[in-house]
Amino acid sequence: MRVLGIDCGTERTGYGVIDSDGRAHRMVAAGCIRSSARDPLERRLLNIAGALRNLIAEYRPDSAAVEEVFFAVNAKSALKLSHVRGVALLLIAEASVDLAEYSPLEVKMSVVGYGRAEKSQVQQMVASLLRLGQPLVSEDASDALAIAICHATHAPFLALEARA
Amino acid sequence: MRVLGIDCGTERTGYGVIDSDGRAHRMVAAGCIRSSARDPLERRLLNIAGALRNLIAEYRPDSAAVEEVFFAVNAKSALKLSHVRGVALLLIAEASVDLAEYSPLEVKMSVVGYGRAEKSQVQQMVASLLRLGQPLVSEDASDALAIAICHATHAPFLALEARA
Repeated sequence: MRVLGIDCGTERTGYGVIDSDGRAHRMVAAGCIRSSARDPLERRLLNIAGALRNLIAEYRPDSAAVEEVFFAVNAKSALKLSHVRGVALLLIAEASVDLAEYSPLEVKMSVVGYGRAEKSQVQQMVASLLRLGQPLVSEDASDALAIAICHATHAPFLALEARA
Repeated sequence: MRVLGIDCGTERTGYGVIDSDGRAHRMVAAGCIRSSARDPLERRLLNIAGALRNLIAEYRPDSAAVEEVFFAVNAKSALKLSHVRGVALLLIAEASVDLAEYSPLEVKMSVVGYGRAEKSQVQQMVASLLRLGQPLVSEDASDALAIAICHATHAPFLALEARA
């Protein structure tokens, strides 16, 4: 299965595409969509939407995964982030791609085996699981790949549950 | 000028289209896009996006106005609302329609002349300003018209500021 992981952000939205059989994963693409903080939000959303639409058209994922959003850190940025997330969910739905959502804890548990893992540990494990040689420079791309890996490892169980 | 007001919501998104010269306003259309609370958020966003896209294509507004979002009331619903708002801003930007944002206080001040006006007062003033005979049944449509009227009365001053 091909999974698109998206790490939504108002200034940087990471993306990662992997092919996976549920145990072994291969990186297909990864990167970061940058938006200028000087642009008004609607222009940034337009920019992010255009880039995500192209990614979905180019890589045709079977499913897409995003992180759940919470207020914990900063209420104002959680609201802005939710605007980007709304756009991402819309594009996923428009492309009829299956959507999965995971908490940051689930993503870390799945990739590092420890829910309170540091950012650098996630980056290293993503590189290791995808046999990249060294961690990606872009933390956002790496986080997006982690989300994709989390879904790829959960998906076989979700399929079993759906069948039961 | 033709203004589209949008009152974003996850279950009901009100819309109102008016023609205005900045003082006198005429209602062109108003209504409410309903989404089932049982549908997952991405399906609701798809539904709202489809309806808004049709409205923009049909009525070709010169500008669109939405309310700013705050957490005051309920943090969780503010996050959900922001997903819908992100979709609305994207569609406005995709159609190259000018966007304006107002606080709920500004909308009430503009329509009723009093920032702490009750919902029913807003509905009555909207009906009165648009010479509707009686308030609209849909509170969401009425709120959307209030947002559109707020922008129509501010827009001439914004234009003067831009020229100065």
